[in-house]
Amino acid sequence: MNGAEALLKTIEAAGIDACFANGGTTEMPLILAFDSVTGIRPILGLFEGVCSGAADGYGRMKEKPALCLLHLGPGLANGVANLHNARRARTPLLNVIGEHASWHVEADAPLAMDIDCLCKTFSGWQRTVRSVETIARDAAEAIEASLRGQIASLIVPCDLQWKEYRGDIPAVKNPAFEPPDRRAIVSAAILLRSTGRTAIVMNGRALRRRGLEAAGRIRAAAGCDLFCINFPAYVDRGAGTVPVSRIPYFPEPAAAVLAPYRAVVLAGTDQPVNFFGYEGQSSNPIASEVPKLRIDGDAQDAAEALEALADELGAPGMDTLGAIVAGFSIPEVPTGRLTPEKACLTLAALQPEGAIIVDEGLTAGMPYFPLGATLAPHSYFMLTGGAIGQGMPSATGASVACPDRPVINLQADGSAMYTVQSLWTQAQAGMNVTTLICSNRSYNIINVELQRTGIADASPRVRAFTNLGTPPIDWPSLSRGLGVPGVAVETCEDLARELKKALREPGPHLIEMVL
Amino acid sequence: MNGAEALLKTIEAAGIDACFANGGTTEMPLILAFDSVTGIRPILGLFEGVCSGAADGYGRMKEKPALCLLHLGPGLANGVANLHNARRARTPLLNVIGEHASWHVEADAPLAMDIDCLCKTFSGWQRTVRSVETIARDAAEAIEASLRGQIASLIVPCDLQWKEYRGDIPAVKNPAFEPPDRRAIVSAAILLRSTGRTAIVMNGRALRRRGLEAAGRIRAAAGCDLFCINFPAYVDRGAGTVPVSRIPYFPEPAAAVLAPYRAVVLAGTDQPVNFFGYEGQSSNPIASEVPKLRIDGDAQDAAEALEALADELGAPGMDTLGAIVAGFSIPEVPTGRLTPEKACLTLAALQPEGAIIVDEGLTAGMPYFPLGATLAPHSYFMLTGGAIGQGMPSATGASVACPDRPVINLQADGSAMYTVQSLWTQAQAGMNVTTLICSNRSYNIINVELQRTGIADASPRVRAFTNLGTPPIDWPSLSRGLGVPGVAVETCEDLARELKKALREPGPHLIEMVL
Repeated sequence: MNGAEALLKTIEAAGIDACFANGGTTEMPLILAFDSVTGIRPILGLFEGVCSGAADGYGRMKEKPALCLLHLGPGLANGVANLHNARRARTPLLNVIGEHASWHVEADAPLAMDIDCLCKTFSGWQRTVRSVETIARDAAEAIEASLRGQIASLIVPCDLQWKEYRGDIPAVKNPAFEPPDRRAIVSAAILLRSTGRTAIVMNGRALRRRGLEAAGRIRAAAGCDLFCINFPAYVDRGAGTVPVSRIPYFPEPAAAVLAPYRAVVLAGTDQPVNFFGYEGQSSNPIASEVPKLRIDGDAQDAAEALEALADELGAPGMDTLGAIVAGFSIPEVPTGRLTPEKACLTLAALQPEGAIIVDEGLTAGMPYFPLGATLAPHSYFMLTGGAIGQGMPSATGASVACPDRPVINLQADGSAMYTVQSLWTQAQAGMNVTTLICSNRSYNIINVELQRTGIADASPRVRAFTNLGTPPIDWPSLSRGLGVPGVAVETCEDLARELKKALREPGPHLIEMVL
Repeated sequence: MNGAEALLKTIEAAGIDACFANGGTTEMPLILAFDSVTGIRPILGLFEGVCSGAADGYGRMKEKPALCLLHLGPGLANGVANLHNARRARTPLLNVIGEHASWHVEADAPLAMDIDCLCKTFSGWQRTVRSVETIARDAAEAIEASLRGQIASLIVPCDLQWKEYRGDIPAVKNPAFEPPDRRAIVSAAILLRSTGRTAIVMNGRALRRRGLEAAGRIRAAAGCDLFCINFPAYVDRGAGTVPVSRIPYFPEPAAAVLAPYRAVVLAGTDQPVNFFGYEGQSSNPIASEVPKLRIDGDAQDAAEALEALADELGAPGMDTLGAIVAGFSIPEVPTGRLTPEKACLTLAALQPEGAIIVDEGLTAGMPYFPLGATLAPHSYFMLTGGAIGQGMPSATGASVACPDRPVINLQADGSAMYTVQSLWTQAQAGMNVTTLICSNRSYNIINVELQRTGIADASPRVRAFTNLGTPPIDWPSLSRGLGVPGVAVETCEDLARELKKALREPGPHLIEMVL
């Protein structure tokens, strides 16, 4: 077997079953190795941002890495924005990047770039394979590194992929979490017991079912309120789940929401940070004089730390927490012309149990989150690093991870255009992804920021930076061009009808919600 | 005036008149400054690869920079692939990248990335503005750096954009080329006179009219053959122009074409490099024992160096070189079902005088280049760094640079999908860009590479990496979705009719050539 086959067999043996790829000549042996290594499904993206975003979505659902196979520096560069989002989500993700043959690198051929330098901007672990003898071991170490909730990037020169490999296929050890830090747990318990009003702010594994249950027990014992950061990586939501409030986006309401708390416990996150720095506002919404205590580190499991804290507080079991978990209620389907609020209400009214909601609705999608708490149980995840263009590919990857669950992508038009190629990948595999485009025909967040600076009516030269309406994007036509049936709707009634139809029919659909 | 206005006024005063942009909150003062600084046209791209590719196309046509305005690290990351192409083309290009407020950087907000590290992968010059007092001077130095044929990247924290600026608007000095190196010129003259068969291999300014005229004179005096590298940055072509042959893509034919030469003079390029390293082939198509002499350095003008060499050889004036320049002849429009050859012949038959041909046709476009020599005078440029997705945006930028010239983008389907958002920008401004999609529904270069490895019939799992045909992209629908009229053709007759119509009607058009 050659180096490429050894590398791919190591990845397959580790249980990685999906490869989001856009390969080329420097990955030819790896591409050919898919012939004999059949446990990994190759999924083509027509742009690398699709591949990296899909690997992020896959990883968030499965808590294990997908393989992202990229072509040299430029191919990797196209994936960087969504790798940045994955880094912020602490998604386990394995990049394999083909490099020129070792002996060809110094010739500085047209495609040559400093791949190592690119990798530094998002990788928690990175290495260039230096010999075919280590290629499988390097891959195993990369996978182990990725399982710690980070991006591992393995750069593989083409000549080493071709070379004969005579070693074994190494097993990958799933790294164990370190146990919770007793001192931090005890301190947090004292803080929660001895302080007036308190809150827990969470992200990461704290927001998955097990973490939320522990947080609910802590709430029952200590009376603290529960929050997630503004851009959580993943949240289990719906009836029967412990609900969390989301810290608002802008610094003023975020500070106002958090102002009542005399101490804050952090799990799965450092203290929350404002998205942008605004003159006169600090970088963080929690006042500097308020004690903040993080109960876990990056090597620990935030859910386990929350459980330890719940036990330390002598909290009741989850089965006694009827008043803490969310009840079940869904809104009525509204009527009349669509607004952002009505679009979100319609989605909330119709989303099925077990849905995966991928939220990149941005300004138009803001009304959705509060509605989710009482719906049927579902998964929710969103843009984590602010690099728009994450929703469409990560919805794609989520569907690969969970093909039997309906994926609904609540998607802004501006950000959808960034990685619109995702639709083709959805069409190719007939994925059950419904894309709801919030079509306000602008980069509306910039309009909101203009209003914040006191500008009510921007001039045409300024609007040139925000206006997506001349010409308006014809989303149904664009979608059909990429193989996905598309329709535009202007009323709640039409949206309800089309959304029901999309959820009933197999395969991907796109609905442009003209707002 | 605030820092943003001072920065923009400096850019305007330097004669930069186009800004390809996708800005956000950290560029808000710059966006607002476009209100008062009216000499720079803001042009929105719906993805940053459109902006950077357009700035590349603009710079290749004008030999002066456009402004590329990008949002933080992720926005920049999306532009990197085309910045890589621009670096390889030595295109003058000015990036301005907004950064978080200086005091907010250390909070590590979601969008925070190592922008400096990203910039290192493509910039010839880079700097972060550290004080509003230097903001205009920093911009002037960035522009001066870009005018040396490189990318200058200026990172501008948002708070410094808002701050009051009290200084002057500095003038920008257009850096002069260093004079040719006499010793290199004399050595090259001796080499050409004293060696058997010789060649000149060119890129950069050597391939613009003035450089080509000098090369023609040298050919007349010394009998040498004239070549451009395989991926030239820009070539003036057509009847009345000195023609050059293009070094082939694959190492074997490239080595065969160059094998007869006993010495090679280089102008505007180091020795040519094979695109990929193949086992058994060296990195360079010119044998190591053949003397190679570059007559210019990066700080010199390759055209001026060629003129000095022509004079050193006592070459005749251009007006006496009737046999060297290309005559005028155009092919007939072929008939019947389209093939790559017939598609290229049809384009050659119909392209108007003064056309700007942007060639990212890749495998299907290969027959085009040889046809160009005898057509009406035109500009030709192409993918330089191998980062596909350059053609559509750089055609857009070329049209902004030269709005009165017809731009024809000979474009492969796979690479078109990378930056398909460009069509919207073309539609918004009614640009005279005709996109000809070579629709072979595959990443055909990978198929060619598979054939090179001896695989005639790849398995479905391998074809998953190359097949763009399931589903086929409906280019007319996709194009209309983005505001550009689109049509699909299967015969030469239909292509001829639609191409004539597209060139006659104002505004952008797309023609899918089903191959």
